[in-house]
Amino acid sequence: MYDVQNIRSDFPILSREVNGKPLVYLDNGASAQKPQVVIDAVTRGYAEEYANVHRGLHYLSNLATEKYEAVRGKVARFLGVPSEDSIILNSGTTEGINMVAYGWAMPRFEAGDEIVLSIMEHHANIVPWHFLRERQGVVIKWVDVDTNGDLDPQKVIDAIGPKTKLVAVTHMSNVLGTVVDVKAITEGAHAKGVPVLVDGSQSAVHMPVNISDIGCDFYAITGHKLYGPSGSGAIYVSPERMAEMRPFLGGGDMIKDVRRDGVDYNDAPMKFEAGTPGIVQTIGMGVALDYMMDIGLDNIAAHEASLRDYTKSKFDGLNWVQVQGQSAGKGAIFSFTLEGAAHAHDISTVLDKKGVAVRAGSHCAMPLMDHMGVPATCRASFGMYNTTEEVDVLVEALELCHELFS
Amino acid sequence: MYDVQNIRSDFPILSREVNGKPLVYLDNGASAQKPQVVIDAVTRGYAEEYANVHRGLHYLSNLATEKYEAVRGKVARFLGVPSEDSIILNSGTTEGINMVAYGWAMPRFEAGDEIVLSIMEHHANIVPWHFLRERQGVVIKWVDVDTNGDLDPQKVIDAIGPKTKLVAVTHMSNVLGTVVDVKAITEGAHAKGVPVLVDGSQSAVHMPVNISDIGCDFYAITGHKLYGPSGSGAIYVSPERMAEMRPFLGGGDMIKDVRRDGVDYNDAPMKFEAGTPGIVQTIGMGVALDYMMDIGLDNIAAHEASLRDYTKSKFDGLNWVQVQGQSAGKGAIFSFTLEGAAHAHDISTVLDKKGVAVRAGSHCAMPLMDHMGVPATCRASFGMYNTTEEVDVLVEALELCHELFS
Repeated sequence: MYDVQNIRSDFPILSREVNGKPLVYLDNGASAQKPQVVIDAVTRGYAEEYANVHRGLHYLSNLATEKYEAVRGKVARFLGVPSEDSIILNSGTTEGINMVAYGWAMPRFEAGDEIVLSIMEHHANIVPWHFLRERQGVVIKWVDVDTNGDLDPQKVIDAIGPKTKLVAVTHMSNVLGTVVDVKAITEGAHAKGVPVLVDGSQSAVHMPVNISDIGCDFYAITGHKLYGPSGSGAIYVSPERMAEMRPFLGGGDMIKDVRRDGVDYNDAPMKFEAGTPGIVQTIGMGVALDYMMDIGLDNIAAHEASLRDYTKSKFDGLNWVQVQGQSAGKGAIFSFTLEGAAHAHDISTVLDKKGVAVRAGSHCAMPLMDHMGVPATCRASFGMYNTTEEVDVLVEALELCHELFS
Repeated sequence: MYDVQNIRSDFPILSREVNGKPLVYLDNGASAQKPQVVIDAVTRGYAEEYANVHRGLHYLSNLATEKYEAVRGKVARFLGVPSEDSIILNSGTTEGINMVAYGWAMPRFEAGDEIVLSIMEHHANIVPWHFLRERQGVVIKWVDVDTNGDLDPQKVIDAIGPKTKLVAVTHMSNVLGTVVDVKAITEGAHAKGVPVLVDGSQSAVHMPVNISDIGCDFYAITGHKLYGPSGSGAIYVSPERMAEMRPFLGGGDMIKDVRRDGVDYNDAPMKFEAGTPGIVQTIGMGVALDYMMDIGLDNIAAHEASLRDYTKSKFDGLNWVQVQGQSAGKGAIFSFTLEGAAHAHDISTVLDKKGVAVRAGSHCAMPLMDHMGVPATCRASFGMYNTTEEVDVLVEALELCHELFS
C-alpha cells in the first residue's frame, strides 16, 4: 500500500508554507525535493565523517571512500546494470553528456558525420552536439514528434544513414512527459551499427529502468532530480564504448602515473573521474536511490500514473486549458497554456501566490517549443510525494487565472 | 585576538574521536573540515529553501537563485576582484582548469606552442596540459625548484620563448608549502605578451589573495579546501580572456537561444555555467568564505604561520625527520620522510592509530616527487583550527614510529 502521506512526512520542505499557503511543489521536472534521510546523510557526511576520498589511509578518509564507492553499486542496481565498473560518477547529466561528446564523439566524428536527435531533447542533449557541428562540421538530424507528442521509433531508425555515428534521445520528455521506446530505437540503431545515448534525467525518476534490457551504449542520470543532492549524478557507459572513450577531465585520481613527458591513465571507470569528486552529494545520491528502491520504483510509477490520470481528467473538463503532449503512457508532466492573453509567466506568478510552484518558459527545450508553435508554457511536473488534493489546488488556482486573464 | 578554541568549537567533527583518540586532523591540504554555519546552510538549503535556480518564477526558485547568485559577489570580494562578472562558479579547480584548457587553450594553441609549468604543479594543473600535448602537439616546458623548494620567478619568465602561449603555476605548493611570487611571474609574462593561470587551490585557503594586485588572467579555487562543501568552486577569468574563451560545457542556462541549426550563447559568466549547478554546495561555499572573512584572512595566515614555526622548531629537533621544502615564507604544510625503512604509508597508519590524520603518497604531484627523488612522503597540512598541542601529538606519534621502524 502506497502511503503518500507517510512519504510526504519524510520531506521536511513539504510542510512549509509559501506566500501564506501550504507549498504545492509541482516543479519536480526541474528538481526534486529531498527526504530527511538524504539531508541527514549530507549533514552526517560533513559533521562526523568527512575527508577526501581515494588518496588517504587514515580512518576518516577510508570511511568516506567506502561510503562514496558504495554508491557506484547502488547506481548499477538502480539502473539494472550488471557491473558497477560501467558506472561513472559525476555532477549530473550535463557533465555526463558533455563527457561523451568530448571524450567519445569529438575524436571519432568527422565533418559530414551525423547525429540523430529527437526534437524533444533537453538543451543538455542538444548543445554538446551543436558544439561538434560548430567546431568540426558534424550534422544534426532532427526527428519530429507527432501531434500527440509521440516519437515513432521507426522514424528515428529510418533517419539513420550511412554517415550517422550516434543516436541521442531522451527516455522521457521533460516538457511533454512522452516516454520513448528507447529499446526499439537501440535495437534498430545497433542493427545499423550505430550507438545510442539515452538521456535518462526524467525517466529514471519516474519509472523502473533496466539498461540491460534497453541495451543502449550510454545512459545519463542526474541526482538532484532523483531526490538526491544538487551536483550529483552518474552515467552508464557500455564496456565497448568505455574502451573507445578518451579521458575528458584531467587531474588527480584519473591517472596511474604522471611524468614530465607523459601520463598513464587509470583503469575505467576511474579514468573518467578527475579530481576531488562531489563526495558528500554523491553519498547523498546513494541514499536517495536506496530510498526510492525501498519504496519501489513500480510503486512510485503507479502512484504517478494515478496522478497523471487524475490531472488529465480534471484538465479535460477545462476547455480553456491546452495541454501539450497527449501520449498515452506519458509521465505525470503537464505543459499547458491558457486560452486568452495570459503569458505562462503571469500564470505561474498567480499560482505562486496560491503556494503552487510550477515552471514557466521554454523548459530548456527550445527546438520542441518551436516545433509545437508555443513560445512558452506552464509546466506542472509531479513526483512521488504529490497528491490528488494538490491537483485540486492547482486546478482551483488555474480557475482564478482564467477569471483574471480571460 | 585569535581564539583557536572558539574556532574549533565551530567545527563539529573536531570533537570526535578516531581509533579511541581525539581526532588530530592534519589533512587539510587534501580537504578541510566544515564549520557548523556551512553545515547549517546546506541543511537549510535542502530542508527549507530548495528549488532549481535561474529558470523559475516561483518563491522557492527565486529564493534559491538569490542565495546562489550572491555567492558570485562573495567570491569576488574574497579574491579582490572588482567585478563579479569575472567569476565563474563551478565544481572546483579541476573543472576550472579543464575549462581553460578546453575552452581557451585548445582552439588557440597549435603544434609546437609551449606551456610553461613549474615542477611543483598538482596533477589538476598538469594533466589538462598533457591532453593538449597528446592531442595537438603542444609542448610542456618545466621549471624546476631549488633544493629549498623555492621557485625563482625569473627562471619562469626566462623559460618563456616566442612559442609560449601560457604560463600555468601554483600559488602555493600542496607538497612543499612554497608560496610562489605569482605577481612577479605575471608581470614578466605579460611583458612578453603571455597570459598566466594561477592554481589557487591551496593559497586561497591560507593567505589573503588579491587578484587585482597579482594581475593574472586565470585564478582557480576549490570550495572543499576552503572549509566549504565538496563539489563547489570558482575560477576568476579576466575580461580579455573571458571574451576569447569559447563555451566548455554545453546545456541549459548557458544559452540564449537554441535552434535546429544553431545556438546563441548567453553572456559571460553564464555562458560558462551549463546545466543545473551545484546549487546548495555553492551556497555553502559562500557561507564558508563569509566565515573566513569574518575571522580575517590575515588573522588565519598569522595563526598558521605560528603553527608552521612551531612545527619547524619541533621537527628541527628530530634529526631522523627529513622535511621536503624549506622555503622561508612557506605555508603550514610539511611533507616528510623518516630515516630508516618506514614507508610513508606505514607511518600514516601508525599516526592514524593515535588519531592523527595525515596523507601519505605522492600528493597528486608526481613530477615534483620525481624531482625530489622521493617516491612518497607523509604530509601534515594545517588549517585555521589546528593547535600547537596537536603538533605535539603529531611529534609524539612520530617518535613512536621512529622507535617502531628504526
